[in-house]
Formats: sequence, structure tokens, C-alpha cells
Amino acid sequence: MAGFSFAVTATDGRARSGLIETPRGTIRTPAFMPVGTAATVKAILPESVAATGADILLGNTYHLMLRPGAERVAALGGLHRFMNWSRPILTDSGGFQVMSLAGLRKLDEEGVRFKSHIDGSTHHLTPERSMEIQRLLGSDIVMAFDECPALPADEARIAQSMRLSMRWAQRSRDAFGERPGHALFGIQQGGLSRELRAESAEALRAIGFDGYAIGGLAVGEGQEAMFEVLDHAPAMLPADRPRYLMGVGKPDDIVGAVLRGVDMMDCVLPSRSGRTGQAFTARGSVNLRNARHATDPRPLEDGCDCPACRGYSRAYLHHVVRAGEIIASMLLTWHNLAYYQRLMADLRAAIAAGTLGRMVAQFEAARAMGDIEPI
Amino acid sequence: MAGFSFAVTATDGRARSGLIETPRGTIRTPAFMPVGTAATVKAILPESVAATGADILLGNTYHLMLRPGAERVAALGGLHRFMNWSRPILTDSGGFQVMSLAGLRKLDEEGVRFKSHIDGSTHHLTPERSMEIQRLLGSDIVMAFDECPALPADEARIAQSMRLSMRWAQRSRDAFGERPGHALFGIQQGGLSRELRAESAEALRAIGFDGYAIGGLAVGEGQEAMFEVLDHAPAMLPADRPRYLMGVGKPDDIVGAVLRGVDMMDCVLPSRSGRTGQAFTARGSVNLRNARHATDPRPLEDGCDCPACRGYSRAYLHHVVRAGEIIASMLLTWHNLAYYQRLMADLRAAIAAGTLGRMVAQFEAARAMGDIEPI
Repeated sequence: MAGFSFAVTATDGRARSGLIETPRGTIRTPAFMPVGTAATVKAILPESVAATGADILLGNTYHLMLRPGAERVAALGGLHRFMNWSRPILTDSGGFQVMSLAGLRKLDEEGVRFKSHIDGSTHHLTPERSMEIQRLLGSDIVMAFDECPALPADEARIAQSMRLSMRWAQRSRDAFGERPGHALFGIQQGGLSRELRAESAEALRAIGFDGYAIGGLAVGEGQEAMFEVLDHAPAMLPADRPRYLMGVGKPDDIVGAVLRGVDMMDCVLPSRSGRTGQAFTARGSVNLRNARHATDPRPLEDGCDCPACRGYSRAYLHHVVRAGEIIASMLLTWHNLAYYQRLMADLRAAIAAGTLGRMVAQFEAARAMGDIEPI
Repeated sequence: MAGFSFAVTATDGRARSGLIETPRGTIRTPAFMPVGTAATVKAILPESVAATGADILLGNTYHLMLRPGAERVAALGGLHRFMNWSRPILTDSGGFQVMSLAGLRKLDEEGVRFKSHIDGSTHHLTPERSMEIQRLLGSDIVMAFDECPALPADEARIAQSMRLSMRWAQRSRDAFGERPGHALFGIQQGGLSRELRAESAEALRAIGFDGYAIGGLAVGEGQEAMFEVLDHAPAMLPADRPRYLMGVGKPDDIVGAVLRGVDMMDCVLPSRSGRTGQAFTARGSVNLRNARHATDPRPLEDGCDCPACRGYSRAYLHHVVRAGEIIASMLLTWHNLAYYQRLMADLRAAIAAGTLGRMVAQFEAARAMGDIEPI
């Protein structure tokens, strides 16, 4: 694991801040990873993503294996070069997204057979093939191949699925081998069950990974249930390795997860919302489509230095959202990613200063105020 | 007309280069104006438009009067502030676009009544209202209100239409009044008829404008017919005022127009093509959707310093075009606008150096080569 390391630099309660060092750059934790599904974070150039303060992107194995294909990306110099992003990239294993295909896939001990949603071609994804694809892509942080049921699901189904994922975790570890400068993360499963989560964590620790993800959450269980899991799950994982909560979340999900000891997160929400006129601010979310913004000369968010807030009024943003203009997606995606990275920077600074409680109180107070009054 | 001036600084044959000075900045001619229909050049931020070398944008009165409305833009500080573009803006009069509505509008001596394509509301556009709207928008270069038939049309219809436009030109001039730092351009009509073009030019000169547009072309007549008109029309207009060819065009249209004495042009082509995977290069147009680019590691255009060419392979551009990703529109729009501005810079430099003939020969030779061979 030469070239990949993690150090916790400060703690505040269960929350921690730290640094993940990789040959492609340092990742400041807690870190939020924007999602670059198909080799692009939608509606924003990678240099702009970097300008928001993102240290790492997430790429989707499922999408990239289907189009343009892992071998093609490798022939073109790897995903970093392909998508013009030189900082670290984490790739998911493809498992979660294949499972979402429902009727289109067939699961067995070996792996998953499925049909492409793009051209109907058939594919077989296994732990070994997932490791190969992520190697071909040139991913810096590789995720073990796993599967998980949507919640609610009965405990037997969750246990069976978790144990299969643990066998796949071992096969992922074996297939990954030794790749200096690249990390392999295992993924804890077990749904909402503390016992299954403990069993899964024990299995992963026995295999040994460079980092540990908490999977199977943000799949419909609600924030309260998720936080209950996060009240015990992180402590089951090695304290000296990064803990990654997959697919989370809204700003208050992120704050709650960091408070509970999570180091890394990813979510499509800031970019997806940006394409539908929804903006995130310290005072909560704002729907720019709403008529109350039509004549409002004020910026979306005071004090935000993103291009949307520096250059435009709410009235303009409302206009371009209503008119369906691409610049609406561009500006709101940039703002939302900037807001998320600002939130992460605030969390890191508060943890380092030992003032996380005060920071979170301010975070909640600002949200309780709600958006600025209409003019 | 204090604050607005035009000086020809060099000529080469009938071609001229020059400078239009306005309180909002200098426009280097021959100038290509990107089109910012609904207060945005689609899929590109205004600072990026400026980075391509554009000195001036075009805004559409028709679109802006319907949404968000001229009075609203004025209340928000004018179009420059609204869309975050501090350099000069030229607005069309709305006439041409209203005429394109066909069945939805009713024309008489007073003006045009029409229904909004957005919400069905009825509007009455007249020379006086067009001047008022363009004043409310804060346009630097205001276009007289005119109308023109699609070609082919019989000569009687073209003559009747031209004479109505000349009466509207006088009403536009009267309604515009004196607005220091702002310019009013008249629009020559007359279809493909030299006699009607001469009659129109005479009428406009008698009224007196700060610049003169050649209208009623690029409406289906073809390049050959357009160039025939441009062989005589520019010389009918005052040599000491800018000559603006409206709605043109493809790169070879632009070169042909500049050779014939045109100083300004606008067209949606570079931005619209950018949203459909079509790129303009010195070696002709390139369809990135084509499968031959799928594995091509080379940049779209060697030597181009736009972000698309600096950061990405043709294979990547092909991938994002095929995947329908917004970044495809962003990168190709930027490239196309950069190519157009590079062409204009080359034309200006060649005119200044007296080497326009050689430059045009090189332009044609590069296009004759065609795109680079597939790898």
C-alpha cells in the first residue's frame, strides 16, 4: 500500500478530520466526492469542480463499463486522462447499480449477469471482473464488489446478501492483489441490524482493507434509521482507516454522518438538483423555479463566491431555469458543489478547532431561519 | 452620437478592418457576434465567451420581450447586468423573428400583432415599441424595426415589404431620438434585386443612421445568390459607417462576406452546432458523433487553445456527445466560438497586413484537405 495512507489529524467527539495521501494528491477528510457518472460531473467542467474544493471524484463502474468501455478507457490512458481530472478518483464496484436494474439481471454465487440499458448487450460482472475494470479505469480507490437489497427487506434476505458480499469481498481482495499507490476498500453491509453490521465488519477486518465503506444505507430507510446505524457502525471499523458512507446525502445527512465518525461521502444530489432548479444554501434549499424569485435582484446566497452568486441575481437564475437554458444547470450545479465543499471545509475547520458543536448549532440555526424573505 | 464611433484602420481590396468605439468597449471589425438569444449564449458562461475573443454579443428582442420582459430587465439594471456581460450588446428589432411565426401574426402599416409562443399572450410590436424595448434592455447598438419575406418571393412582395421597412426605419429613427453612446442601425432590404437594394440604401442614407445592416439574406437564397448581392450592396452604404450582415453564417460565408466589405456578422451556427456534436475547424466541419472518433486520442483541432482541444481527445468528445452529456454542448460550443473568433482575428490581421488574398487561399486549401485521417 505504498503511496496510500490515512492519518487522523484531529477529533471532536466521534467526528474526525484527517488526510488521505495518494500519489495523485491529498484528500482532506471529511470529504465530499462529487459524482462523475459517465466520465463527467454533469454540467460542469472538471477544472471548475476542482475550483469548488473537491479533492476527489467518484466514477461509476457500471456506466463506464457499458460506455465507452473499460478497455477503451485504458487504451486512451485511463479515466483521469480521459476525463481531464488529475486528482484522485474513487470508483464504485458496479454492484449497487447493477442491482438497481431489477428484472434485467440474474444473481448467483459467481456474480451478476445483466443486460445493458444502452444497447441490450449482455454482461457478466463478478468480483474479479469488477477489480479488472477498476484497474483498467485507473481508479485510485477501488471498491470491493458487493450487492445489497433495497430496504425494507426481511432480515434473512439481508443476512444472506451480506454474507454473499463478504465472500465477494474476499474474492475482490484476492483479485486486487498488490497495487502500490492504489487502495481497496471493503464495504460493510447488514441493513439496519446491529448484529449483521458487526458480523460484516468482523469479516472485512479479517480480510483487511485500506479503507472501509458503510454500504446499504440511503436506500429508502430514512434519516433516523440511518443515523441509528451510524451510531454504532463506524466504531466497528478500524479507527486508523478511512470510513466512507456511500451515496449520502443531503446537507443535514452529511453533518449527522460526520458527527458520527464518517470520513468520506458521495452523492448525486448537488449536481442532479442543480439541473432541476434546486439550490442548496446555508439557509436551506431554494427552488429557483418559484415565481417569488422572478424580480429578485439579490444573489442566490450572500457571501458565496461561486460564479452563480457573484455574477447573477435570483431573477436571472429564475429566468434561465424557466427558459430551460443550459446555463441554469451550469450555474446551479457549480453553486451546489461549492456549497457542499464549503460545508465540508467548515466541518473540517470546526473539528480541528474543537468547535464542532458550535458549528453544528449555527448550521441548524441558519436552516431554521429558512430562505431570505421575498422582496 | 457622442461615445460611439467607427474608424476603418486598414483595407485590402473591398475588405476593411476597423474599430467601433463604444462606452462599453471597443469592437474590432470584421467582428463576429455570438447570439445570446434569451440572455445567455447557450451552454457557455459569458466570461468564457469573452475569453474566446468576442467583443460584442447579440440579444433577441423578440425572446426577451416575452420572457422575462423588457420592463423587468430594465428594473433589474438592464441586459448587461442581468446576463453578466459588460461588453457591448447589439439587439435585433424583433421584426425578423416575429415574421417567422407565420400564422401566428398579423402585419399592418402600424406594426405586427402576434401571440407569444410561450404563453399565448398577445403583443403588438411597432417601430416605436421596438425602440422602447431595446432602450429598456440597454442595448448599445439598436436595430431599426423591419420586416422581410422569406426567399424566394416575387419582386412586388419584396418591394412592398422593403418600402414598409423604410417607413418603419424613419419611425425607428424618430422614436430612437438622441441617445449619446448608443447607436441606431438601419437595415437595407430588397431581396436579390439590385434596384430595390439601391432604393433601400438611398432611403436609409436620407434618414441617416450610425451603421447599416444588410438584411433579408441568409433566408434560403443560397451562398451564390447572397454573394451576388454582396458584390454590390455594401458599396451602396456609407463607407464611413459599419456594415452589418445579419444572420451569417458558415465560415466560408463569413470569409466571402468580409472579402466583399462586410464589417459585422452574427449567427447561431457555432453555438447551435455545438449542441448537436458538430464542430468547426480550419479543415472543415467535424461530426463528433461519427464512430470513427470513438478511439481517437487526438485533439479535435491541433493548435487550438480552447478547453475542448487542450483537455480532451476526440474519443472523449465522441463519448460525451453519444451519452448526451451537457459537457459535450459546453466544450463544443466553446470550441466553435473560439474557432469563429480565431477566424475573425486571422481576417483582421490579414487585412491589416495586406495579405488577405494569401490568407483566404490558405483558408480554402485547409478546408480542401478535409478532416484528419482516421487513426
